[in-house]
Amino acid sequence: MAGDFEIERLDEVIHGRARLGIMAFLSGAEAADFTTLKAKLALTDGNLSIHLRKLEAAGYVAIEKSFVGRKPLTRVSLTDAGREAFATYLDVIGKLVEGRP
Amino acid sequence: MAGDFEIERLDEVIHGRARLGIMAFLSGAEAADFTTLKAKLALTDGNLSIHLRKLEAAGYVAIEKSFVGRKPLTRVSLTDAGREAFATYLDVIGKLVEGRP
Repeated sequence: MAGDFEIERLDEVIHGRARLGIMAFLSGAEAADFTTLKAKLALTDGNLSIHLRKLEAAGYVAIEKSFVGRKPLTRVSLTDAGREAFATYLDVIGKLVEGRP
Repeated sequence: MAGDFEIERLDEVIHGRARLGIMAFLSGAEAADFTTLKAKLALTDGNLSIHLRKLEAAGYVAIEKSFVGRKPLTRVSLTDAGREAFATYLDVIGKLVEGRP
């Protein structure tokens, strides 16, 4: 039987390379601060901000801003919805790349 | 140790949803005609053409046009370079989504 090639089922919010990297990183971490994410993913401040906002708008990540002394600290973590969406994404892309016609 | 979050290693030519679907489908098929690909991936003629041209320009697919009677037939297949690039893509994305910080 054919594999599952319904590409619209691949969540575009997650599929974009930078966001996929962020989701993958966060899925294995309790939470990460902005600086760590930036370094891990080799993204600029601006790029990371844009992608985090998109993930936040989808309800996939929670962004918490605070101060450590006078230094701002931005902590990012996956929400339950984000964790679920990422699991679905992995399932869909797994079927896509394993699917054989 | 950290996972591999070097997202630029993910080949953008392959990563786009439609092209990923095409590559995945072709990786399991000897070759496919245009109509089959269109149906399998639920793409329009125009969209499929654009993505095939991008894959052809990268050297990942070979496109062969012929006639069956008076009907044009477009056969698409992965090139060796395409097969190799897809294997690398699977390796990189596998490490990305499995990588745990």
